Amino acid sequence: MGTKEETERLIRRAKEASRHVARMTTNQKNSALNRMADGLEKEKEAIMAANEKDMTAGKEEGLSLAVLDRLRLDEKRIRAMADGVRDVVKLPDPVGEITGMKRRPSGISVGQMRVPLGLVGFIYESRPNVTSDAAALCLKSGNAVALRGGSEAIHSNLTIARVLSQAVAAEGAPPGAITIMPTVDRQAVAAMLKLDKLIDVIIPRGGTEFIKYVMANSSIPVIAHDAGVCHVYIDRRADLAMGQDIAFNAKVQRPGVCNAAETLLVHQDVAAAFLPAMVERYRKVGVELVGCPRTMSLAPGVAEATEEDWRTEYLDLKISIRVVDSLDEAIDHITKYGSAHTEAIVTEDYSAAGEFLARVDSSSVMVNASTRFSDGGEYGLGAEIGISTQKLHARGPMGLNELTCQKFIVLGTGQVRG
Amino acid sequence: MGTKEETERLIRRAKEASRHVARMTTNQKNSALNRMADGLEKEKEAIMAANEKDMTAGKEEGLSLAVLDRLRLDEKRIRAMADGVRDVVKLPDPVGEITGMKRRPSGISVGQMRVPLGLVGFIYESRPNVTSDAAALCLKSGNAVALRGGSEAIHSNLTIARVLSQAVAAEGAPPGAITIMPTVDRQAVAAMLKLDKLIDVIIPRGGTEFIKYVMANSSIPVIAHDAGVCHVYIDRRADLAMGQDIAFNAKVQRPGVCNAAETLLVHQDVAAAFLPAMVERYRKVGVELVGCPRTMSLAPGVAEATEEDWRTEYLDLKISIRVVDSLDEAIDHITKYGSAHTEAIVTEDYSAAGEFLARVDSSSVMVNASTRFSDGGEYGLGAEIGISTQKLHARGPMGLNELTCQKFIVLGTGQVRG
Repeated sequence: MGTKEETERLIRRAKEASRHVARMTTNQKNSALNRMADGLEKEKEAIMAANEKDMTAGKEEGLSLAVLDRLRLDEKRIRAMADGVRDVVKLPDPVGEITGMKRRPSGISVGQMRVPLGLVGFIYESRPNVTSDAAALCLKSGNAVALRGGSEAIHSNLTIARVLSQAVAAEGAPPGAITIMPTVDRQAVAAMLKLDKLIDVIIPRGGTEFIKYVMANSSIPVIAHDAGVCHVYIDRRADLAMGQDIAFNAKVQRPGVCNAAETLLVHQDVAAAFLPAMVERYRKVGVELVGCPRTMSLAPGVAEATEEDWRTEYLDLKISIRVVDSLDEAIDHITKYGSAHTEAIVTEDYSAAGEFLARVDSSSVMVNASTRFSDGGEYGLGAEIGISTQKLHARGPMGLNELTCQKFIVLGTGQVRG
Repeated sequence: MGTKEETERLIRRAKEASRHVARMTTNQKNSALNRMADGLEKEKEAIMAANEKDMTAGKEEGLSLAVLDRLRLDEKRIRAMADGVRDVVKLPDPVGEITGMKRRPSGISVGQMRVPLGLVGFIYESRPNVTSDAAALCLKSGNAVALRGGSEAIHSNLTIARVLSQAVAAEGAPPGAITIMPTVDRQAVAAMLKLDKLIDVIIPRGGTEFIKYVMANSSIPVIAHDAGVCHVYIDRRADLAMGQDIAFNAKVQRPGVCNAAETLLVHQDVAAAFLPAMVERYRKVGVELVGCPRTMSLAPGVAEATEEDWRTEYLDLKISIRVVDSLDEAIDHITKYGSAHTEAIVTEDYSAAGEFLARVDSSSVMVNASTRFSDGGEYGLGAEIGISTQKLHARGPMGLNELTCQKFIVLGTGQVRG
């Protein structure tokens, strides 16, 4: 059977399974999740053996140490995966919630019922622990999931998926409820992206080029998690000590993630008081600094930023700094160069805070807090399947609710339209 | 300037205008809407003169009488357009609503703020009154709109758009807040659909082929209003008199619209008692009838339905009828052949009603009411810009809220992540 036919066969089976998963009770889903967590721990030897194959192949292919580290599974990481699945047990089940039921003038009652999306296509790179996270979140929200992981992790993923599928099957779910695409053939992804009658949503997670490829080639709606070119703006009425702590934390605490800050904007009235000490603090921990001419004149040792710098997600210990004339100029800069992920203002000024919150068009907008808080766990969603940088359906960290939709329900007593 | 360049110039201007529209107060927007309504009435002579040109061209091109009737504007229809705009004044402004603000363990407060989508691309066919409806709904929800109407209505649309733009400009909005694409060149649509950095959402309204074209060619998220192959299912515990009224109303009251029923499903236990009288009632008003063999044996004069019939949106006085063995078979039929628009069950059985509501995966699911109620006005949304048959972002009738999205806002007092 060709890749395309085999992909369609598996996806069709997953779609059929989705109708069963949608009807599982919360107790059944939680019981399946507990079996999944137990299965991961019980089969840790098999998972580590499969992972060893991926590690060996990865070393032969010359993968970087960072990638190999993300790929590696040991007992501790497998236990963490199991605990991650158990955390999902504790989250409230979103399926079946009925909201807004209202009697209308015609006599019908109209409201909305929250229901699963159906079949989620989840396409991701690298880390095998994402496999169990995604499977758990999709199951709890009543969806079947078709997982397509990175080629580096194929052996690990197939073993993890087998363990998870067996656990769900023991709860009576049909095969296909958790489906892993068994091939690393790129054609399998291309074929998946065209099955718009079977897959209800595609969630891609990976690098910018990969996301672009998925968006350009999918005929299925995509919820994309694009780059995070996040900004911290120090307003002229900022508490400068607070500004230093937030700008430092936003860049340095974990520079390799999407909610880390990449650009610091500083109001001209406080630039001379703020920047020299800030730059010194960054420099002490090895942050590479580029900036506008005004920044360079205030803090020696800052290299000149190029136009490209303002658009760059460094994901590293590097930051671009710009002095701006006004709040308006700060917002204009963010609008022009940002990626609409997360931006923060530091200010004690009521009006500036309000303007920034209302006008900055990003998935998360903050006053006096580090951009690093842009996260499903920190926001109280319990767990997140990604952070949406788009506007439709989901914006910002996505939890269980974002894996569902609401349909209208109408309760009548025989009404017809006149 | 080429079509592509001119399209991009206009869309870029509209995007810039969207930032202004997003910041207009409710009073400013309502004042602009009232000016728009007054403008339509004041300039009715100019609008009717432009419409005359479209009518003349349409007759020369041999457009059908039905299309010409939809195209035609007279004083009464222009007044109705103005009243439609005034109705939008009365609707609550969704922009700026803040919901769910909660204090998190870290000390930050997290909630969501409702904001406009930005620039809406609205692409539609035929009726020029849609121009003023769409412009009013987009303005009230804080969006700029780029309108691309059908070529038959180009003169009418350009004149209406000029009147509406002048009204909005008098309220201080920049040109471009209401933009009409001035060409009927098909290339202009193709160019629009690729401007994913400028247009935030595409809403197409028109025939199935047109929607398919837009979905296949847009790199911008699309909210589609696809076909309505709607079902009425008469359960074995139905009140048969109620079933007759609902099945009749759903098909006959306005057969040319998407929420009219196209297929009637009848449980085998009540088929003999229900179908002969139902078929007779349909026949009396000229409904063409096709059905399964069991239907044909119970009600003479019903032609045999083809496989294609079950998938067909007749939009006409024609219905397909099938006798089913069970509720399961009814749901399976709907899943296989329906378009996930609107389905109704007629039953007095508590469990059957619950099963149907939970399991039928359509944008509207009804118990004991006519499918014809699937409508923004009937549901209390005030006005609708379309009915979404997709699952992401909006499902079912779309009102002002569906022209907005929610971003996260975070209020801190200097929090950083540890």
